[in-house]
Amino acid sequence: MKDNVKVGLLGLGTVGTGVVKIIQNHQEQLVHRVGCPVEVTKVLVKNMDKKRDVDLSKESLTLDPYDVINDPDVDVIVEVMGGIDETKQYLLDALNQKKHVVTANKDLVALYGSELLKAASENDCDFYYEASVAGGIPIIRGLADGLASDKIQKLMGIVNGTTNFILTKMHKEGMSYEVALKEAQDLGFAEADPTADVEGLDAARKMAILARLAFSMNIELEDVNVSGISTVSDSDLKHGQTLGYTMKLIGYADQSDERVEVSVQPTFLANNHPMASVNDEYNAVYVYGEAVGETMFYGPGAGSMPTATSIVSDLIAVVTNMRLGVNGKSISVPQFEKRLKSAEEKFAKYFIRLHVRDEVGSFSELTKLFSSNSISFEKILQLPLDKEGMAEIVIVTHKASMENYSQMLEQIKDLAVVHSVESFYRVEGEGAK
Amino acid sequence: MKDNVKVGLLGLGTVGTGVVKIIQNHQEQLVHRVGCPVEVTKVLVKNMDKKRDVDLSKESLTLDPYDVINDPDVDVIVEVMGGIDETKQYLLDALNQKKHVVTANKDLVALYGSELLKAASENDCDFYYEASVAGGIPIIRGLADGLASDKIQKLMGIVNGTTNFILTKMHKEGMSYEVALKEAQDLGFAEADPTADVEGLDAARKMAILARLAFSMNIELEDVNVSGISTVSDSDLKHGQTLGYTMKLIGYADQSDERVEVSVQPTFLANNHPMASVNDEYNAVYVYGEAVGETMFYGPGAGSMPTATSIVSDLIAVVTNMRLGVNGKSISVPQFEKRLKSAEEKFAKYFIRLHVRDEVGSFSELTKLFSSNSISFEKILQLPLDKEGMAEIVIVTHKASMENYSQMLEQIKDLAVVHSVESFYRVEGEGAK
Repeated sequence: MKDNVKVGLLGLGTVGTGVVKIIQNHQEQLVHRVGCPVEVTKVLVKNMDKKRDVDLSKESLTLDPYDVINDPDVDVIVEVMGGIDETKQYLLDALNQKKHVVTANKDLVALYGSELLKAASENDCDFYYEASVAGGIPIIRGLADGLASDKIQKLMGIVNGTTNFILTKMHKEGMSYEVALKEAQDLGFAEADPTADVEGLDAARKMAILARLAFSMNIELEDVNVSGISTVSDSDLKHGQTLGYTMKLIGYADQSDERVEVSVQPTFLANNHPMASVNDEYNAVYVYGEAVGETMFYGPGAGSMPTATSIVSDLIAVVTNMRLGVNGKSISVPQFEKRLKSAEEKFAKYFIRLHVRDEVGSFSELTKLFSSNSISFEKILQLPLDKEGMAEIVIVTHKASMENYSQMLEQIKDLAVVHSVESFYRVEGEGAK
Repeated sequence: MKDNVKVGLLGLGTVGTGVVKIIQNHQEQLVHRVGCPVEVTKVLVKNMDKKRDVDLSKESLTLDPYDVINDPDVDVIVEVMGGIDETKQYLLDALNQKKHVVTANKDLVALYGSELLKAASENDCDFYYEASVAGGIPIIRGLADGLASDKIQKLMGIVNGTTNFILTKMHKEGMSYEVALKEAQDLGFAEADPTADVEGLDAARKMAILARLAFSMNIELEDVNVSGISTVSDSDLKHGQTLGYTMKLIGYADQSDERVEVSVQPTFLANNHPMASVNDEYNAVYVYGEAVGETMFYGPGAGSMPTATSIVSDLIAVVTNMRLGVNGKSISVPQFEKRLKSAEEKFAKYFIRLHVRDEVGSFSELTKLFSSNSISFEKILQLPLDKEGMAEIVIVTHKASMENYSQMLEQIKDLAVVHSVESFYRVEGEGAK
């Protein structure tokens, strides 16, 4: 049995520094838990001379990743450097040298998770990635272990802290999207180029990882339908609030009749939904299991210490497996063939905001169009507009298929009474009655 | 390697039946996950001839627990019969015969968890008890694995569905305690004798289990200070709402300076606290870790299928360990000596409702008493009372020690202006501003 575990670290930014700190400060607890010391012995850095607030010897630092990957003493590689293609090659090389891997790299796992897991399994190595989704929330373990005996029918995730922060500010403080984004950037919650966050791409990567695990299918990033929050307006939020809804950027993954759909889209949640009160930069993942019913995991989605905590939890699992001699044994391959829902098989409620000409018969024309597409109304709100001769109509529909919505949205352009379709958002739950 | 795992079931009520159903209906997924078939082969029942809605052969049923415990073919005992002393002996006998144990029995685990875990460890057996706390929420695994790398500073739990249902009805529908309790009883959420639920004893058992694990200390049931909700009045709730608080029965476990306190008590939570919107019969456990910050696990606290799901998750862990030959290896013994906080070391905010004589100087006498005990005010609400010459005063304090509160409550009896102390509840968070 291994009596001393050595860790090689690829990257020493804030997360990497957090990992070193936890390992050093919790050494006593770690030894108690896994039965042997765990030590960081080799670290890839960008700059040898930078002042650091962790205690690492000069000899343990290197500028060459292969000094870490090829070090015969290193048992586990912790990857916190980011990047995709080059990093993937480093990790494949590490696995092929029988080194276990723990990573926080969601981009890499979303794009090449299957390939990396396969390489790990072939080498009897562990490959853990808890920190890649929802930083401090143990959702990967929750899905893999805790709910292993259930059939997961639906996942909903608030998995991007930046957009949740922006939407919370818009809702609670009445900020415009632009002002809220600026505040998020000032506070370091959003990048200078916020595209990956606000357009939903970051959330889509995380949902691909979660859906793959929840449904045991090879879901790819391109299977996720994505739309972001950059076009969400104050008016949308205001009308949604009137009707009892809160806007969130929601990742969905839904399974019925062995077919799945995965998407990321701005969504109006009924205020009494447990996810509606997940605010600021917090994340949450809601899981609906056939047997267990509703569960939700809530916590910080990012931040160096929460992420480092998840990494060290993975590291503990790796070391435990090493001492038991069972690494790589618990990797489970996708059990089912991927079958995606067609537009006729996807059903949802939608919020539609229209500008129409305020004429006799306008509403009846609208009603005719919706009902000819088998879409019925749950709620209607009509308000006068400042624009001359125009009215604003907000409709919340009952459930209908995406096929029917597409047709309706196509045909609505031809209605003379409709000036414009201002917005079209998914709705979850009942809202105000 | 074991290529067929046989399960003996003690008890075939609704949870036991749920376990059999999941094992039978999910056989394919189970095999995929653990690599071999899992079968229920021996079942203790109370009545051999009762009609059941699961498919079990007549030969597999027995009225004698030792037919299950002593069956040489049985590898794992799943205990869902309830009971304490007798059941404890059955499980000790099972462990001593090298059978792994999975139990949903919170009373047993709260009272004898340490003894049973020790027996399991000595026999290289697993002893899992996920279902004993918060039914469908994987909180035991969350604490043991997911947060293993962190230091847990504080736990707060809504771990009793009955009281949460009653308090939700009182809050949302303005029901009195008695009417809400009656409705809970009618719906099967509360027992005919609701004492264990409404007086907080059930929650106390669960908090002892969680605190033991979170702080790695031998917390006993008698270390938990308990008060229940049977004296909570409509007036309390109404005034709490005015000040921005929601009443919940909260289990606390808090650690500072290596000393802990564990309690269960009716508590006013600020409405923006993530636990304030946990409603109806749902449970939630909020965990504050030094590194990870705030996390929360939400889900059904009871119900036969959620509980059965947790049991089968434990069973999967046992079978995985069996196939890997590592049973009993991950049981961790309490690492720290138990040190409980004294009254001077426990700090909290409190809500105090008083009836005072409406005289000149009343308030100044109160102020003097509080400040002489180093208790300062965060909020004050004074209202006229119907009773002649009396006023109602509601005070929310800043944090003070329990030592100071005790002294104040002792001395307040001697104040001529104070007619009665109507209520005294812990407060968490800021509430309305």
